[in-house]
Amino acid sequence: MKSDIDRLMAARGLDALAVLGGEGDNPHRRYLTNGVKASAVVIKKRGEPPTLIVNNMEVEEAQKSGLPVLTHNDFRLFELWEQYKDDRAAMFVKTWERFLAHFGIVRGRVGVYGFGNIGAAWEQLKLLSAAFPDIEFKGERDTSLFDEAVSTKDAAEIAIMREVGERTCAVMQAVWDFIAGHGAVVGTVVKADGSALTVGDVKRFLRVKLLEYGLSDPNDETIFAVGRDAGFPHSRGQDGDVLRLGQAIVFDLFPRDLRSGYYHDMTRTWSIGYAAPEVEKAYGEVRLAYDRVMETLAVGEKTQKYQLLACDVLEECGHPTVRSQPGTTTGYMHSLGHGLGLEIHERPSFTHLRDDDVVQIGSVFSVEPGVYYPERGFGVRIEDTVYMDESGQARSLTPFRKDLVLPLKG
Amino acid sequence: MKSDIDRLMAARGLDALAVLGGEGDNPHRRYLTNGVKASAVVIKKRGEPPTLIVNNMEVEEAQKSGLPVLTHNDFRLFELWEQYKDDRAAMFVKTWERFLAHFGIVRGRVGVYGFGNIGAAWEQLKLLSAAFPDIEFKGERDTSLFDEAVSTKDAAEIAIMREVGERTCAVMQAVWDFIAGHGAVVGTVVKADGSALTVGDVKRFLRVKLLEYGLSDPNDETIFAVGRDAGFPHSRGQDGDVLRLGQAIVFDLFPRDLRSGYYHDMTRTWSIGYAAPEVEKAYGEVRLAYDRVMETLAVGEKTQKYQLLACDVLEECGHPTVRSQPGTTTGYMHSLGHGLGLEIHERPSFTHLRDDDVVQIGSVFSVEPGVYYPERGFGVRIEDTVYMDESGQARSLTPFRKDLVLPLKG
Repeated sequence: MKSDIDRLMAARGLDALAVLGGEGDNPHRRYLTNGVKASAVVIKKRGEPPTLIVNNMEVEEAQKSGLPVLTHNDFRLFELWEQYKDDRAAMFVKTWERFLAHFGIVRGRVGVYGFGNIGAAWEQLKLLSAAFPDIEFKGERDTSLFDEAVSTKDAAEIAIMREVGERTCAVMQAVWDFIAGHGAVVGTVVKADGSALTVGDVKRFLRVKLLEYGLSDPNDETIFAVGRDAGFPHSRGQDGDVLRLGQAIVFDLFPRDLRSGYYHDMTRTWSIGYAAPEVEKAYGEVRLAYDRVMETLAVGEKTQKYQLLACDVLEECGHPTVRSQPGTTTGYMHSLGHGLGLEIHERPSFTHLRDDDVVQIGSVFSVEPGVYYPERGFGVRIEDTVYMDESGQARSLTPFRKDLVLPLKG
Repeated sequence: MKSDIDRLMAARGLDALAVLGGEGDNPHRRYLTNGVKASAVVIKKRGEPPTLIVNNMEVEEAQKSGLPVLTHNDFRLFELWEQYKDDRAAMFVKTWERFLAHFGIVRGRVGVYGFGNIGAAWEQLKLLSAAFPDIEFKGERDTSLFDEAVSTKDAAEIAIMREVGERTCAVMQAVWDFIAGHGAVVGTVVKADGSALTVGDVKRFLRVKLLEYGLSDPNDETIFAVGRDAGFPHSRGQDGDVLRLGQAIVFDLFPRDLRSGYYHDMTRTWSIGYAAPEVEKAYGEVRLAYDRVMETLAVGEKTQKYQLLACDVLEECGHPTVRSQPGTTTGYMHSLGHGLGLEIHERPSFTHLRDDDVVQIGSVFSVEPGVYYPERGFGVRIEDTVYMDESGQARSLTPFRKDLVLPLKG
């Protein structure tokens, strides 16, 4: 959690860390700066608070972080940039010379983090490494300081994520009620005017509902996929597709809270009116995998154990899995789950390809077994966001029923 | 424009380019892949189309690009990853060995682009550089191939951006009408129940309206700032602030089209009921700067010329500017404008700190002079999205009136 950062810096021999990146979404920056939206460079020496460096226009936003803020004026960058405007490499290096000097960073190891333009950063970091040979600018390719920090959440974060989960479930309930309010004509769900209810109709309803509950789907990526599309785990669904009775719908909702930036992640599989026998059977098997994982989740265990458990259950039911048939495009073809927080995919990761992630008190992650058969016209997934409480018990943060059949009332 | 990419690669001596980055928003990837949302690695050899490499779950989404798609199965990565699961550096290098071999890239220069985790990419690129010494992995710190490509738009892009502008203006009109439908009591704008209309009320109305028009404010960053807040160019406004007659509001709306991903950018300054004389005066001066720039914009000129022109006009009116007082926190303190497209800030850039950007046929950019006086409780900005048409004429893509005073009808 956030209070671990100095310890994680020490473990890596970092004297300081710098969060780079431009104006885009930057989860590392957001995490360190308590969610402010300023395009800051953030520098933190070990044992000291993070400092935001922003242009003068962003100072008010930056100060909402409650952290020290310095402006470009504090570094007299306007004069510097005027002086070096015909040599932009020097402009960049001289700017950083002032930043580093201010923090008294003259040697040692500086961790490099943040999200942004990769090609630009690659050249910038080569420039800095050459200009400051006594400083090692160190990135992390795998299991970074931020990966470790976010792999457990503190009580304040759990409280936020619980509340975001409640709002996400309220939206899912609203979509359930919206669909349930329709009638059906010869197997097709129809609106009051007699025309067919489509995936696009549901998504339009959903987008407004998310906003009402203060949630956002920032890249419009909600999955509401019917029939064959539901058989592709990442198919988002086609707006023109019509909802029909007895057809499986995979509805994967992973909104971000507009205020806090935290994500929730949940999936339900619905079949309107009734379920086809093969869908019902697959649903029961996926539900069994979900329940078995939830019953056995324990602090201190490797996450891999649960991915293998899900493979056990689903293989016993006759499904191909990523373990029994690597690269399979049917059956169970993905990981069991992933951490989430300010990013939708964080550590820990529940894949059989990694054995260094461990379930810890404060871990928040998805549990999402599923099976997919596009050629048979269906897929099934069940997903809750789960956390490990103080007593080491797995608790769902997704209070929403796991019914397969959605009956129409209309 | 996009058709320039092979020429821009040749000019840089690039035999191939690779777009890296994970699942987050990645404008380089989006530009090359016609807007699909798959977490693809994209590799393009000069003279050949870009190829998307995705995991098997994302193949349907990737194919919407109309471009060649390869999956992890095509490279038998599952077996490779199983083999190297305890040596993740080797796993990474061996994966790229297969990618590079497939494209026959054994030597030469590969341009590195994309948006993502900077620290991870820094270490990954060092690994690749060491593993493939005959290949130069080259980033671009300044004026990259993508910067150059996007600095002109083709006819299809202009058509999309025009239509996105029309929808953005429809939303702004809806907000105008929403506010205008209210009444006022002793100088405060009030709702039907007699309570004050707040910035939060306006933003809630706005968010739903954006969705109705298929637009998104992905990070909830719309600026609707009143009074003193309007005096800070990047202040987003406080939800609890009450709207009052005669108080300047800076409303900067820069939504992204949900379908195409293209942005629009416009700002209006409104004063409800009436305008204070000093606001009216400043508004007229900013309008003068806007008009003078629009009248003189010409193909082949450096963008810097127009920033200096805006400084001329505003200094003549007595305002401090970034030129007359570098680092000023009042008056005209920012650039005149910026290119936009799939990113909200693209090239060309209209700053006096850069003299290598030129106005071209097909350039699309904002023109947004403004002056800011937080201690006097106001700021003023006027902004349209503008493009240079085939005849070399500057045309606004923002068909919305530039009235300062918004009269109430309620």
